[in-house]
Amino acid sequence: MIDQLIQKIKEKQAPVVVGLDPTLALIPEAVKQEAYREYGETLEGAAEALWQFNKAIVDAVCDLIPAVKPQSAMYEQFGAPGVAVYQKTIEYCHSRGLIVIGDVKRGDIGSTSAAYASGHLGTVRVGSKVLTAFDEDFATVNPYLGSDGIRPFLDVCRESGKGIFVLVKTSNPSSGEFQDRDTEGRPLYEHVAEKVAAWADEVMGKDYSSVGCVVGATYPEMGKRLRSVMPKSYILVPGYGAQGGTAESLRPYFNDDGLGAIVNSSRGIIGAWKQEAYAAYGEADYAGAARAAVSAMIADINRIF
Amino acid sequence: MIDQLIQKIKEKQAPVVVGLDPTLALIPEAVKQEAYREYGETLEGAAEALWQFNKAIVDAVCDLIPAVKPQSAMYEQFGAPGVAVYQKTIEYCHSRGLIVIGDVKRGDIGSTSAAYASGHLGTVRVGSKVLTAFDEDFATVNPYLGSDGIRPFLDVCRESGKGIFVLVKTSNPSSGEFQDRDTEGRPLYEHVAEKVAAWADEVMGKDYSSVGCVVGATYPEMGKRLRSVMPKSYILVPGYGAQGGTAESLRPYFNDDGLGAIVNSSRGIIGAWKQEAYAAYGEADYAGAARAAVSAMIADINRIF
Repeated sequence: MIDQLIQKIKEKQAPVVVGLDPTLALIPEAVKQEAYREYGETLEGAAEALWQFNKAIVDAVCDLIPAVKPQSAMYEQFGAPGVAVYQKTIEYCHSRGLIVIGDVKRGDIGSTSAAYASGHLGTVRVGSKVLTAFDEDFATVNPYLGSDGIRPFLDVCRESGKGIFVLVKTSNPSSGEFQDRDTEGRPLYEHVAEKVAAWADEVMGKDYSSVGCVVGATYPEMGKRLRSVMPKSYILVPGYGAQGGTAESLRPYFNDDGLGAIVNSSRGIIGAWKQEAYAAYGEADYAGAARAAVSAMIADINRIF
Repeated sequence: MIDQLIQKIKEKQAPVVVGLDPTLALIPEAVKQEAYREYGETLEGAAEALWQFNKAIVDAVCDLIPAVKPQSAMYEQFGAPGVAVYQKTIEYCHSRGLIVIGDVKRGDIGSTSAAYASGHLGTVRVGSKVLTAFDEDFATVNPYLGSDGIRPFLDVCRESGKGIFVLVKTSNPSSGEFQDRDTEGRPLYEHVAEKVAAWADEVMGKDYSSVGCVVGATYPEMGKRLRSVMPKSYILVPGYGAQGGTAESLRPYFNDDGLGAIVNSSRGIIGAWKQEAYAAYGEADYAGAARAAVSAMIADINRIF
């Protein structure tokens, strides 16, 4: 799957992923009202609004980008009906030719991680049938529980050809509280990065590994260092735009081949219609605003090469 | 909610939580066949089997115990239909008077953690309505992203009166890979524990805090130390039984008042019918076997006081 991701990044000339993190506040009133008319002001109504919004955004941007990253939390917020839309969104993105990175940040002890890995990236056996459940192409994974929380994902990646992005250094202000702690002479995130590099060696694609990592856009110096610690891992970079990362700060995350990183923007794209720069699109053409914002982001990032 | 949990622990004289972590392998053939007859060998069929199994287990043990802990992964394994059963299971457990600890181990950056906190412990606004989604009473939370991943949960706990258990030291063999690393002179988990103690002070119940922690049963000496670092935090202790923890090893997790810890068993209870000790119940009376196993577990743990 990492090879397919790279192929699509090259085709689209866009090392960019759009975060499908809809909140009701980002969804135009007309879309919500239509959904509430059909399902009421219920979890199902909210989920329907997310679904209609996602479809329009995906239709508007799918030819420009290689991948999307739906954020599980935004769907779980609306309970089981929300999660059903998370699953439908993944299917729909696949039908539009997009690679799907499930931003689920799961991580548990071995047997439980195996269930997460099966449900999100692998298959489950039900009676005589072998089925897929959420069927994302990649999932984000939390490393706090150590190797035996990660290994079931590696096993599934080997079988299914899919991949993971392990959290190394996150983009939030207090990420340093534990991740940056001086641990045997180096920050904790470097120890995690070393493990990622070892796991990456186990599940190699052509040039890169199916085991990538997450490093926030807000730390270019760390990005440079971590790039060299994990040379075979794609870096999924959150924090561009809304969280303050700029294109200039992204250069260290890439290798000299122009590969090695994929940059996420969520609110900056799906909420573009609420920004001054795209106000001309109006509330009704929120999808057009998203498309314009994606184009601008791709141009901005390609400047650095 | 921590006060209600303590109240129920005292009433039942059982510092015990049953993990509702069903896998198809733990569900008797007859239950599965009945579910497949109705829904086919589909995700829906598997989810129905989990649901029928859960109901029977809950009916059989609900008068003996204060709380249950459904493990999200086991439901996510079957996609959106599985998650719908996770939600139904929570509702059903509430209807049987049980406190529900959602073992979701979520953790993300601030705004995203806020969505998890709302969906699992709080409320969501949909139009003019304020709704609950999964509505667990407690959720387990991963600390790797630091305070701003935790703080939204604290806010929701203050509003809703609910609680969290923060992963400090997990029960799996490789938990030490990062958690035990020497970090500024002490293991990383102690730094996490100190943060937990500070967060706990912010959301106090009567004697204990709504902020608890997870410390595996397999480390009694660490349990003792961590008990003193987090005096106001309830410790949720996984790893009893299947993972090798014994009743003797659990004493250090409790305070002298006999409170301060709640011990989980999952497979040891819900899979009791597959164990030699409970073979007499037979496959058909798996719920009876679970009840006997809970009674034995409660007696075993109460020995230590």
